[in-house]
Amino acid sequence: MSNTQIDKGALFTLGYGLYVVSSHREGRLNGQIANAVMQVTSTPPKIAVAINKDNLTHEYISHSSALAITILSESAPMKLIGLFGFRSGRDVDKFAEVSFETLPSGCPFVKEHSLAYIDAQVEAAHDSGTHTIFIARVIGAQIIGQGKPMSYAYYSQTLRGKTPPTAPTYKAQAPFGNR
Amino acid sequence: MSNTQIDKGALFTLGYGLYVVSSHREGRLNGQIANAVMQVTSTPPKIAVAINKDNLTHEYISHSSALAITILSESAPMKLIGLFGFRSGRDVDKFAEVSFETLPSGCPFVKEHSLAYIDAQVEAAHDSGTHTIFIARVIGAQIIGQGKPMSYAYYSQTLRGKTPPTAPTYKAQAPFGNR
Repeated sequence: MSNTQIDKGALFTLGYGLYVVSSHREGRLNGQIANAVMQVTSTPPKIAVAINKDNLTHEYISHSSALAITILSESAPMKLIGLFGFRSGRDVDKFAEVSFETLPSGCPFVKEHSLAYIDAQVEAAHDSGTHTIFIARVIGAQIIGQGKPMSYAYYSQTLRGKTPPTAPTYKAQAPFGNR
Repeated sequence: MSNTQIDKGALFTLGYGLYVVSSHREGRLNGQIANAVMQVTSTPPKIAVAINKDNLTHEYISHSSALAITILSESAPMKLIGLFGFRSGRDVDKFAEVSFETLPSGCPFVKEHSLAYIDAQVEAAHDSGTHTIFIARVIGAQIIGQGKPMSYAYYSQTLRGKTPPTAPTYKAQAPFGNR
């Protein structure tokens, strides 16, 4: 029987993509970088998304019961990832700085350096401590670009990207950016 | 405003790894291939795993409230993936055919072609229709091998692996294997 130590390095072998998760509230738009997104059923298509309760996007999703996922391409520059990943929508209007389009849910998706979007309606919210897992029914999904999806491994290893303390996969104690 | 069509190809741009999710019931062991695994919180570390209700592993996890994740390496052959992904534990004793070790939860992990394991205690089960999302607290995690984690994209594109109808990401209507 193996021992019970937790080596966080083992958790970092789990695979993810890198996404902008976005929502809206009373005409305002916001989005954040997230990697904890997965499809959970095929019929009907549903996704699960884990979002930190401290984040403005969490507040918007909770109020609108809507969220959109932008699937980023490997071409996405650190500037774009930094805007959505390390700045807070409380300080900056993120979507004022990028090309975007609004989906039927009211949520925006990013049109730059992106391969696809998913538009979704939240059906349930599971309280998981620091994060909420939103389970959402897919109401729209389209391919919008060519290229390879940005994986979290590509972001962290090839681009040497950091992870903010609010991420489910946060490991370091360094003060990376705003939440 | 974009239209509301669902192109399943857009859902396939989401990124995943490829794992054996395993559990136990009354001394019997079973496991299955899954890609819908993600970390949802860091403090304490928790993961979410979507498993089809028809699968024997679902029955075992539901009864034991325990699950383990084996993170497969890119070296994992189709034979190993086929054993866990396309055969049912109702027909074959899968762990009789591989090298494994048992964790404190009672769940086994695969020692062949694997990079790491995660041992976890289920804290909640969210009914999501065809699948249950198990939210589980990590009680152990270790690196056990060298190499690159198998991504779902590597499996489906490089190895040309298929996806069974019970997977959250199932798209084709072809009769792939047992459930």
